[in-house]
Amino acid sequence: MAGRGPKGERGEQADKIIAAARRAFATRGYAATSLRAVAQEADVDPGLVTYYFRTKATLLEAVMQPPEAFGAAVATAAEQPLPLRGRAFVQANLRLWEDPVSAEILRSVILTAAQEPAAMQRLRQLFSELVLAVVSHSLPDAERTLRASLIATQMVGLVMNRYIWQVGDIAALPADTVTDLLAPTIQRYLADPLPTT
Amino acid sequence: MAGRGPKGERGEQADKIIAAARRAFATRGYAATSLRAVAQEADVDPGLVTYYFRTKATLLEAVMQPPEAFGAAVATAAEQPLPLRGRAFVQANLRLWEDPVSAEILRSVILTAAQEPAAMQRLRQLFSELVLAVVSHSLPDAERTLRASLIATQMVGLVMNRYIWQVGDIAALPADTVTDLLAPTIQRYLADPLPTT
Repeated sequence: MAGRGPKGERGEQADKIIAAARRAFATRGYAATSLRAVAQEADVDPGLVTYYFRTKATLLEAVMQPPEAFGAAVATAAEQPLPLRGRAFVQANLRLWEDPVSAEILRSVILTAAQEPAAMQRLRQLFSELVLAVVSHSLPDAERTLRASLIATQMVGLVMNRYIWQVGDIAALPADTVTDLLAPTIQRYLADPLPTT
Repeated sequence: MAGRGPKGERGEQADKIIAAARRAFATRGYAATSLRAVAQEADVDPGLVTYYFRTKATLLEAVMQPPEAFGAAVATAAEQPLPLRGRAFVQANLRLWEDPVSAEILRSVILTAAQEPAAMQRLRQLFSELVLAVVSHSLPDAERTLRASLIATQMVGLVMNRYIWQVGDIAALPADTVTDLLAPTIQRYLADPLPTT
């Protein structure tokens, strides 16, 4: 996150600007949103946005930062023994998405990325770092990235249906039931033999 | 599709307008796009857009119409014996998405739906009709809709990663390899015992 000085100093104003940018980028799109529009949405002086973030690209970088708890939750899941890891990973993801604050951040990241190549590039990095962390490090690189990509397809589809679009039975079920239903799929992508490997 | 008279009469102009609306809704969003902007994008007189589609809602309905081949492909997959149906369904979807014309239509439907509740409502109907058609009709309704919803999570996630965002190994693999990798997951959601059923 790019601000002058540590987070405490930057205070509430910078957070307010980031939150406003998140809403604006996700609903109107990154390209169509000016720094001035972000300032208006945040109810701050446009000069303050420039002071804290300099450029729209720097502001995007701050917006795309996932909740700190996300990295921590995935790291904990990654430490589970392999036979339990698929379930732990699904649980970690659902816990984050069930929290309204984290969910709002993750939701903005996905909606912004869908429209903006620079944001998509950042989302790609997040996947490399976070999902790949769960896949066994002793596998060959090509197999690791394939397994991570398969896991991403199932988790992204879950998130889109349950949290972004809120469609289908999967949107209404308790998180524990969703975990029971999805964990075997993630476990297969993590550890079962695959046709191409 | 809402035009005056059969498709032949409406001719190229209406198709041109629909294609332009598709691009505009998907990139700028439905709410932010005026009928005038669609006319400009289509390079036709604004009066022609109103003549063919009357309202933006009618135009949205036309835009959200999936390619005819999509319904036909899913119907064919639905006729396969249950043990082969998961694979047939994945194949039918991939074949549509590998075709640039169908892919562009499906892509617009998904991007527009992500931003616009009316379009999301239409996408919900599409899923009810198309995915549900694949699930065994002899099952209780609650189980049928749950299985359809699970299939939707995997297929939507595949489409987002491979075709919309084009991220990860799944975006680069041949369609046949993707079918081999995903078919067992869809088959499980179609036919295997589930923890909640």
